[in-house]
Amino acid sequence: MLQSNKESLGIVKPEYFTFAQSPDELILESGLKLGPITLAYETYGVLNEEKTNAILALHAFSGDAHAAGYHQDEEKPGWWNDMIGPGKAFDTDKYFVICSNVLGGCKGSTGPSSLNPATGRPYGLDFPIITISDMVRAQKKLIDHLGIKKLLCVAGGSMGGMQVLQWVANYPEMVKSAIPIATTMKHSPQQIAFDEVGRQAVMADPAWNGGDYYGKAQPERGLAVARMIGHITYMSDRSMEDKFSRKLKEDNYSFTFKTDFEVEGYLRYRGDTFVKRFDANTYLYITKAMDYFDVSGDKIIPSGKKIDTRFLVISFKSDWLYPSYQSNELVRILRMRRADVTYCDINSTYGHDAFLLEVEDESRLIKHFLEKVSSVK
Amino acid sequence: MLQSNKESLGIVKPEYFTFAQSPDELILESGLKLGPITLAYETYGVLNEEKTNAILALHAFSGDAHAAGYHQDEEKPGWWNDMIGPGKAFDTDKYFVICSNVLGGCKGSTGPSSLNPATGRPYGLDFPIITISDMVRAQKKLIDHLGIKKLLCVAGGSMGGMQVLQWVANYPEMVKSAIPIATTMKHSPQQIAFDEVGRQAVMADPAWNGGDYYGKAQPERGLAVARMIGHITYMSDRSMEDKFSRKLKEDNYSFTFKTDFEVEGYLRYRGDTFVKRFDANTYLYITKAMDYFDVSGDKIIPSGKKIDTRFLVISFKSDWLYPSYQSNELVRILRMRRADVTYCDINSTYGHDAFLLEVEDESRLIKHFLEKVSSVK
Repeated sequence: MLQSNKESLGIVKPEYFTFAQSPDELILESGLKLGPITLAYETYGVLNEEKTNAILALHAFSGDAHAAGYHQDEEKPGWWNDMIGPGKAFDTDKYFVICSNVLGGCKGSTGPSSLNPATGRPYGLDFPIITISDMVRAQKKLIDHLGIKKLLCVAGGSMGGMQVLQWVANYPEMVKSAIPIATTMKHSPQQIAFDEVGRQAVMADPAWNGGDYYGKAQPERGLAVARMIGHITYMSDRSMEDKFSRKLKEDNYSFTFKTDFEVEGYLRYRGDTFVKRFDANTYLYITKAMDYFDVSGDKIIPSGKKIDTRFLVISFKSDWLYPSYQSNELVRILRMRRADVTYCDINSTYGHDAFLLEVEDESRLIKHFLEKVSSVK
Repeated sequence: MLQSNKESLGIVKPEYFTFAQSPDELILESGLKLGPITLAYETYGVLNEEKTNAILALHAFSGDAHAAGYHQDEEKPGWWNDMIGPGKAFDTDKYFVICSNVLGGCKGSTGPSSLNPATGRPYGLDFPIITISDMVRAQKKLIDHLGIKKLLCVAGGSMGGMQVLQWVANYPEMVKSAIPIATTMKHSPQQIAFDEVGRQAVMADPAWNGGDYYGKAQPERGLAVARMIGHITYMSDRSMEDKFSRKLKEDNYSFTFKTDFEVEGYLRYRGDTFVKRFDANTYLYITKAMDYFDVSGDKIIPSGKKIDTRFLVISFKSDWLYPSYQSNELVRILRMRRADVTYCDINSTYGHDAFLLEVEDESRLIKHFLEKVSSVK
């Protein structure tokens, strides 16, 4: 792993783009209308005059627009700071990197915690169900607004990778290259099952109150349980063994239901901190969007159609949440459509979290890929 | 899979054995005393005069004493009915099979829902933390009570397999043969993590009320969530794909948080039915006992000691909750101690549930093993 360098991008600030003002609301996949829509986004580096050096970085489930650099007075950098910055994989000396919080999010973009203009109160469950395609169609408005006709690259891991594939399905002519990482063309029933249990944990909490909890306490216990389940799926059996084994917090078993094992303490801590920064309804909406997502078979590139997008597909051998066979299947479909595909199944023990941690391997692959793509007319 | 045959054992009835009456309470591993203790148990077949044909079948986490045959007016047979009966793997024409509900359980054995003699009210969290060894020490009292000096075999899957290994560790001279199936010498941090999330889901439910909910509603929502998590871990990615794939309950996405996918409906159903038959506090106590369990290294057979117990170790290739590498490690340790071990890693797609479903393969192995063991003096 490369060390993150606090000086690299320095202090960054989010920006906001609002569109779909009445009467031009966005018509969603469900058929419902939504507007106005605000997307929170950040940019790093400089857009060149020809506007040909733009890279769209797309975040995973619990991510946000703050992909790199530091916010004023914050200790922690953005979620992909190891990968985005001067000299890094997404080299901000060369490229203009954009990251937006997804539609439905809770970090500055319009979502269930936003004010519903029809009522003046937060949407709650009146927020319409959104899909990954709706998220991507909103991002397209932002890219149009920035005056970019074609993205040099669209890249992201996990749910970010789903958005990458949806960009290819919706706007192939706008995507010069695509880097889907640790992702899938569609959720398997096991992936849906984990999402559904998380949703049930949230909805089982009386504080959830049918989604109407704004201004009161949010369903912290239920959301914490959901997040704990998530964390198990992000790590691998092996990485948990390496990190925790059966280490105890104290010298002996407590013979109580207090925290005995370090892994228990870790999960409780992760659950408790998550609820302070994430909205429970957004948890429901975004997991649903992932479960509905499906660009399998003909849906990513229609049969008989040839597209010019170049692909770098990355997966990780120990990732059991988005197992390598799903990336393999993606590669098979893309090659059947005669797309230009490089595929790498990285030997990592970190499980799904590897897409955030295997910086060195990813950087080498991505740097080389972007140089090649940049050199093509 | 063999078909279960309703006629095979016919109607069976539980029996009850009570011991550890004041002032002879059982001293638990924690150092606390517990008594009186009742174990619910069932027996199938006939104990021979020499009392040399007794097999102790041990149940998994949510099992009970009702391993085979039918209870009066019930449609469903016991949990291992496919394996226990005339002519079956555990052939009741030859063997006398005993199954007892574990200490801490909620199906007739003393557990947190039992009356605390000190207060006249259900124990709740005043029930002491118990261990797998405490369960086995209670079973030993039952076996003594039945006048059996040596068990022909001790067999069980999952937590039943842990009890098998604990029997070997505690009373090797009483165990002529042992069949630990789909189990481990100790929980990995991932296994502890899944248990801990289940416990947190129960305890997050306000109806849990610090364990004091008897006479009121039990924490059904929290317990259902815990069970849903469990069910994901009992199946494999592949068996979920085979059973559900992405099949929808209706023709199209609902664009609501109702049940869209069949797998969601299945999990909700499994959660909802579980809470009608299982006690939430027992869920906490028994998962804790599994997490504390550890017969690794020297603990199952002390270094330098030789025991006569013969082993048949069975695991399943698609079991990711108790992965084959854990059975492999068990076999390695047993062979280091020069024990007589047969090991079979069965090629199944059913995941952990395979120990209940791969009846044909298991029956062939177990029948042959028991014949061999019976013929040895």
